[in-house]
Amino acid sequence: MTEAALTGHSIIAGTRVPGNGASISAVDPRTGETFGPEYSLLVTEQLKSATEAAARAARTYRETDPEARAAFLDLIASKLEDLRLQITARLQAETGLPEARANGELSRTTGQLRMFAQVVRDGVFHGVRLDAGDQDRTPLPKPDLRQRRIALGPVAVFGASNFPLAFSVAGGDTASALAAGCPVIVKAHNAHPGLSEIVGSAITEAVAECGLDAGVFSLIYGPGAQIGQALVADPVVKAVGFTGSRGAGTALMEVAAARQVPIPVYAEMSAINPVIVLPGALSSEGLASAFVTSLMGSSGQLCTAPGVVFVPRSEAGDSFVTEVKELISAQPGQTMLTPSIAKALKDGVDRVGGSNNVELLSAGVEGPNENAPRPMVFETSAETFATNEQVREEIFGAASLIVRFGTLDDLEASLEKMEGQLTATFQLTEADAAGAARLLPLLEEKAGRILVNGWPTGVEVGNAVIHGGPYPATSDSRSTSVGSAAIDRFLRPVAYQDFPEFLQPAPVRDNNPWNLKLRLIEGQPRLS
Amino acid sequence: MTEAALTGHSIIAGTRVPGNGASISAVDPRTGETFGPEYSLLVTEQLKSATEAAARAARTYRETDPEARAAFLDLIASKLEDLRLQITARLQAETGLPEARANGELSRTTGQLRMFAQVVRDGVFHGVRLDAGDQDRTPLPKPDLRQRRIALGPVAVFGASNFPLAFSVAGGDTASALAAGCPVIVKAHNAHPGLSEIVGSAITEAVAECGLDAGVFSLIYGPGAQIGQALVADPVVKAVGFTGSRGAGTALMEVAAARQVPIPVYAEMSAINPVIVLPGALSSEGLASAFVTSLMGSSGQLCTAPGVVFVPRSEAGDSFVTEVKELISAQPGQTMLTPSIAKALKDGVDRVGGSNNVELLSAGVEGPNENAPRPMVFETSAETFATNEQVREEIFGAASLIVRFGTLDDLEASLEKMEGQLTATFQLTEADAAGAARLLPLLEEKAGRILVNGWPTGVEVGNAVIHGGPYPATSDSRSTSVGSAAIDRFLRPVAYQDFPEFLQPAPVRDNNPWNLKLRLIEGQPRLS
Repeated sequence: MTEAALTGHSIIAGTRVPGNGASISAVDPRTGETFGPEYSLLVTEQLKSATEAAARAARTYRETDPEARAAFLDLIASKLEDLRLQITARLQAETGLPEARANGELSRTTGQLRMFAQVVRDGVFHGVRLDAGDQDRTPLPKPDLRQRRIALGPVAVFGASNFPLAFSVAGGDTASALAAGCPVIVKAHNAHPGLSEIVGSAITEAVAECGLDAGVFSLIYGPGAQIGQALVADPVVKAVGFTGSRGAGTALMEVAAARQVPIPVYAEMSAINPVIVLPGALSSEGLASAFVTSLMGSSGQLCTAPGVVFVPRSEAGDSFVTEVKELISAQPGQTMLTPSIAKALKDGVDRVGGSNNVELLSAGVEGPNENAPRPMVFETSAETFATNEQVREEIFGAASLIVRFGTLDDLEASLEKMEGQLTATFQLTEADAAGAARLLPLLEEKAGRILVNGWPTGVEVGNAVIHGGPYPATSDSRSTSVGSAAIDRFLRPVAYQDFPEFLQPAPVRDNNPWNLKLRLIEGQPRLS
Repeated sequence: MTEAALTGHSIIAGTRVPGNGASISAVDPRTGETFGPEYSLLVTEQLKSATEAAARAARTYRETDPEARAAFLDLIASKLEDLRLQITARLQAETGLPEARANGELSRTTGQLRMFAQVVRDGVFHGVRLDAGDQDRTPLPKPDLRQRRIALGPVAVFGASNFPLAFSVAGGDTASALAAGCPVIVKAHNAHPGLSEIVGSAITEAVAECGLDAGVFSLIYGPGAQIGQALVADPVVKAVGFTGSRGAGTALMEVAAARQVPIPVYAEMSAINPVIVLPGALSSEGLASAFVTSLMGSSGQLCTAPGVVFVPRSEAGDSFVTEVKELISAQPGQTMLTPSIAKALKDGVDRVGGSNNVELLSAGVEGPNENAPRPMVFETSAETFATNEQVREEIFGAASLIVRFGTLDDLEASLEKMEGQLTATFQLTEADAAGAARLLPLLEEKAGRILVNGWPTGVEVGNAVIHGGPYPATSDSRSTSVGSAAIDRFLRPVAYQDFPEFLQPAPVRDNNPWNLKLRLIEGQPRLS
């Protein structure tokens, strides 16, 4: 298959299902024009067929052996590669993102799926722990205990508009949930419906070719908040993966907490990703242009875009700010993902720009296409940042705030006021070591990933990365939504006491039939 | 020190602080008599001194090196051993639990502290992951990424009345939080105030002797729900450990979810711990007496007491039931922990006993002391169990329900209706293998620990145990409150990108200065 048919319908457990609700169409944000096919939206009552299919599939799917599950993930990846031309073309038309970004994001997405295939083959995530029994122990015999982690059950995934592949239908949440052994129901993002169907059809084909229960995957179209909240409220659903706005994420958290049986929500929501320029770093070459490049990437529509830069109040600091001012003024706006996101950017810059003691440092020019507002950088003082909550809120898009600080005390007081972040960044030289060491513990408490002399955009997919952080960066600071550790979100431990061998699940058997690379035996890690 | 002074006051960061509220006294449940000293209760406004001290201590304490932190845990254990005579005497007077139980629970508690000292020395819990950078990678250089887990911050611990040592001031929640590097604020259980002060004074001395910040530990007395909810609402508190009733646990979950920054609550609440007798097991010797022993242990006041036993509707099943009936009728009631718990037991048996199609199978005799109600066992059908929610609710104490089933289908339908459980148990022989294999996936979804041919009471403290389970057994099925994995509850990951060596925290340095036994390097587990 090198081209997937677009039907305009939901895919529920392998079957195209027309929605009984309204319809939507894709919009090309570069022109504002809509294009086909129309996508029929499900009404809430139609959800049951997806959740019931997922419930039926959960038990067999969670016990698939490593090779079967890994081959399934690999097959999704190769099917997406086969569809590369169709995917990248549709992605550009639906999101306005450039071709290089479309190709890069597809490669990242397939790389992510293959990484999770390897995670499944290695088997460390089973978290196996074995403690041998001892019938002769006094005063009581010691039981034989064996622990593994099992899949939580069906997971609801909400894709993001800003990563229409890597954080969408076959993105990190889906890949890690499938790797953990959970069926997935994806709520398609209405800003890229056709792309969603292409990707969803690849997964659906892989499910069938691997002989898995069709309920392992569904892709549903519906009115956002309404069907999303109904999905999270469904008793079948056992966990939620979400990337999007703070408002939508918080609403899902509330629905999940109010259920008869509450469930975990992994929502990645909001961050301003502070960059702290320490005095020594001001002599670095290209600092201002690196900032502007990071800010402008994907029109600033990255969760890790540098929304605030702390700059010393000094001559060297003034030079940096002047350089930023000049660079920004030459930047053309780039088309944003949707008209409403472009509108929200305008509201955000009005809010910050209209605050007391905040000045517009520089604005770029309107882009040549639609929905391409001028990039903007504002400037304020550490005191204002510390005292005015409004200026500390995220503006999604190519807008940032430079905060000038006098002393490390002022800087620290400002940072203390920040909410939880995905990232925090130091620009430093060895001369700044003492200051950085002083601030590091605070940044560790505020952020999930801390960088030195880099820029926070461009999240590396690997084993050691964290894309997470304290609320409201995410709903659960104990987790990451990028990297191999993302699988941990969808598992829970079960202990087996004095189980005869014939009842023991494969991962906890003495002879390690799945050849899991790591097990904890009598409390000690043992490799195989 | 072989005896701790009882002052009747809270211990806030090393200082005795009289409460500005009412006072309470211990009650000997065997006689109903109160005894001294009086304990002064804090008012909510007095909490701040404890939370502020914990906040101040958090940053230095979380970076203590393994040996310093392990020595602290070991010292608490040896101080508790030194106080053994005072502890066991006070425990019996405040709870009515027998001497053997007091001694056993103290040994379990000190063993738990020493186990966590070993966990700290091994260092696996740091969860270190290292991915090397590659400046030459195209199209983009690969960053150097290093991940570790850091302590969440101050933890509020709520002890249980039924484990006045092992799940109280120096119990599993405290030990695992301290091992993780979190300061702890314990809300003393008002049912064992003197015992709490003895244990709290031992921890306080250990903090001082180890040269730690006094804010690492506080023990507060206050009116239960009110001060507890205020503690959970305090912005300084970053996680909660709780063992107790479903009502109280759920209330804390709601407070935590409603905070400006929500925090995790690890509440262990409610279970009926089903035991499933499969047909082959009915020929086992001593099955009925083993059940009665498990039920009567600690007067049935164990979280894992067998509250429901599924028995085949057969002649052999009838014989088992008759045997239980005779054994129970000879059982004297044992003193319960408090008058109100004894009263709640009466309410529970009235609720179940008054349900349609439920019959009292057998009742024991009143115990010789106060608050020692008659043990009771009821009998009903699988159909009634499946259709009447009331009979599926926990009765805390020596009361249980035998549920007779005809076919495996009936049994499965009953089990499907159960809420989440701490444990589930099979009684089986190899002849029952097919039935057990069929039911196992359902039990895995319902319970945290599954036993074969044992009884669920008597939780082994080790590395592979799980004391947890789906809601309402606990608030978070991804965790355990017993065993070495309990430390994972109080940690969150942080990634360090392109950090120069002088800023790298010890656990993530290439040379592994803390000699952590396991690190994930390029995605592969590596031992040291």
